[in-house]
Amino acid sequence: MRAALINTGTELLLGNVQDAHLAFIAREIFPLGLRIEERRTVPDSEAIRHTLVELFPRCEILFVTGGLGPTSDDITREMIADSLGLELRQDPQLLNSLRQRLQIRGIKWAAGIARQSDVPVGAQVLPNENGSAPGLYLKANINPRVPSPHVFVLPGPPRELQLMFGKFVLPILRALVPPSALLDQRLYKIAGVGESLVEEAIGEKILAIPEIELGYCARPGEVEVRIIGKAEVIEQADAIIRLALGLSIFSTADEILEEVIVKLLTKRHQTMATAESCTGGLLANRITNVPGASQIFVTGYVCYANRAKTDMLDVDPKLIETRGAVSEPVARALAEHARTCARSDHALATTGIAGPTGGSPEKPVGTVYVALASAESETIVREFFFPTDRETFKQLAAQAAFEMLRQKLLALS
Amino acid sequence: MRAALINTGTELLLGNVQDAHLAFIAREIFPLGLRIEERRTVPDSEAIRHTLVELFPRCEILFVTGGLGPTSDDITREMIADSLGLELRQDPQLLNSLRQRLQIRGIKWAAGIARQSDVPVGAQVLPNENGSAPGLYLKANINPRVPSPHVFVLPGPPRELQLMFGKFVLPILRALVPPSALLDQRLYKIAGVGESLVEEAIGEKILAIPEIELGYCARPGEVEVRIIGKAEVIEQADAIIRLALGLSIFSTADEILEEVIVKLLTKRHQTMATAESCTGGLLANRITNVPGASQIFVTGYVCYANRAKTDMLDVDPKLIETRGAVSEPVARALAEHARTCARSDHALATTGIAGPTGGSPEKPVGTVYVALASAESETIVREFFFPTDRETFKQLAAQAAFEMLRQKLLALS
Repeated sequence: MRAALINTGTELLLGNVQDAHLAFIAREIFPLGLRIEERRTVPDSEAIRHTLVELFPRCEILFVTGGLGPTSDDITREMIADSLGLELRQDPQLLNSLRQRLQIRGIKWAAGIARQSDVPVGAQVLPNENGSAPGLYLKANINPRVPSPHVFVLPGPPRELQLMFGKFVLPILRALVPPSALLDQRLYKIAGVGESLVEEAIGEKILAIPEIELGYCARPGEVEVRIIGKAEVIEQADAIIRLALGLSIFSTADEILEEVIVKLLTKRHQTMATAESCTGGLLANRITNVPGASQIFVTGYVCYANRAKTDMLDVDPKLIETRGAVSEPVARALAEHARTCARSDHALATTGIAGPTGGSPEKPVGTVYVALASAESETIVREFFFPTDRETFKQLAAQAAFEMLRQKLLALS
Repeated sequence: MRAALINTGTELLLGNVQDAHLAFIAREIFPLGLRIEERRTVPDSEAIRHTLVELFPRCEILFVTGGLGPTSDDITREMIADSLGLELRQDPQLLNSLRQRLQIRGIKWAAGIARQSDVPVGAQVLPNENGSAPGLYLKANINPRVPSPHVFVLPGPPRELQLMFGKFVLPILRALVPPSALLDQRLYKIAGVGESLVEEAIGEKILAIPEIELGYCARPGEVEVRIIGKAEVIEQADAIIRLALGLSIFSTADEILEEVIVKLLTKRHQTMATAESCTGGLLANRITNVPGASQIFVTGYVCYANRAKTDMLDVDPKLIETRGAVSEPVARALAEHARTCARSDHALATTGIAGPTGGSPEKPVGTVYVALASAESETIVREFFFPTDRETFKQLAAQAAFEMLRQKLLALS
């Protein structure tokens, strides 16, 4: 069954409000084997009618959001009735419950409010337990003279739509959808390998499996691989991906890298510290975004100025002078001294040139050294080169650092 | 001129990624008198071609985003060329710069990468300074046999699209759009005052001015006010807003709060340090995102564990025991000791309960103390209450801290 979505709302097209309905509805209907094949965003105007008429023959299920409120720009109800050739009739029971709702809240009755109790003849009312405008369900071909899909008309505010969807829309959908359509979806998050190399490792083999869908999404320092298909082909693809990418996969549960780090350290009852020059607190910030980070994170040193490296972590000023603040031995000293000072099991250190200025021919903008000191093994220092903008540089350096620690924790366990 | 937008990307329709392009593009083109009249989101499939063909006669300007990368699901370039009846030719200069880009970064060449240098004959290449896939501009009726609007094809990653839009798309649009449509737009960013209070202060007076459009956008710890209209009414509204909001306005140039802090400190030749418990490095991270931060930022102490507060900043363990780590005197001690240890002019400290656990009846989740120690004046400590999720709590606490420092710097100057 093909599904489509129409978001109505001039504010969406002006960029004043971000739509949250597509993502919500897509995730809710996926387990039923349903996907939104097309989403259209249209203003509160005649465009709603044209879009409805254009989409009626193109799908079996149509969701329409927004424009059900009491103000003059809320015209979705009228457009739906009109395009389906149905009369709108006031529902006395709805009108009564609207009056009660406002009375309880001490809100004055206004002229437009009664419109929210208008219902196209034959439509099923979907109660709105978080607001005043009810939703509507119009079954397929509700007017035999106008071929139409199943239409669900839903209120714009996410709190209202989401509750209504779970309680009233999903049960109707479950009865409509054949159970054989069910699809499985798997997600793999990979660090330390670029998008093209990930594709080289798995692309051909996965696409050789019949009826599987494969997608990639690249973010700074990580790649997401997604496969969709029937359960049996998903198992086949899963085996290929795990064999090819193995330990580079840091999550199959949509976790972020710092969550994985917090989880691994918590499991081992170990702690960490950070000594950050070029990442300027990003490592500490990302780790402390994770609930439960206080169990594993002790101390973060943001030794941005050279004298901070000496003051905080006792890095020999002569070492900085002779080898430079951005150098292998300074990264090493930062990590080792941070681990000792913080009395932690592990410490990550970064020192590099984020730019836009500060580069030199030997050490251009983008150069970064990442060091990992651990109680149980030798300090590792790696050099990376990320010539990009300042914030992406910091993100990439942080990803590289977390990935070094993750690989170490895997090797130790 | 009618404008439309096509977002390509199966991941959008699966709900795995939220679109940010509509809001961004809508705001960028608004001052030119342009609005997106329809947005369609389609999967990486033949649907792209159908949608292009359907929208060609319906608009004069068409934006298409996503699907320009190196992997097999990136097919937008081919769909554009095909629907316009144009041949794709490899651009040797682009291919060369792609090779160089990868070489500089030490990334291995993979088969699909070269596709990013394919250009439909006659199209103008829009450089991508934040990524590898270039954008494309195809002028209206580029193939005389296929009537078509002006088409802008843009990369999916927001960082890449946004830079490209500002530098290369807007200049082309400005030349296309008749100047009579031009509107003026002003932006005011306000910290420390809620959205409703901002509206109370200015709303009625601004809306009494004819032909002005007024918009608000609330983000954690700040409110953005936007006015749009012809030059003369904008001046009138500007005077009202400046009178009502005065020093609460931290930027009229779309700066972020940390940029303003870096600017103010640089002007005064002063430095700062941070001592962060509950914000966990966010203050340091935000400050060091600003180019030139190394001139003013010395040291960040992320004293997350209680013993880190004692080890790093010599906070009396008895004080922590008797008054609690989240308390006025501990915040004060952190700020004052951080300033002394870092030998900086100012120091900001935070200590609070980010949650989701760790609260108590006296100090519930959301409690936070922010302290500011300055060489030139007495230490200030303020208590705030931000009962929300962990990341928003950190953002709100950071905004409150930066705003305290900004107000201090204004008072001193």
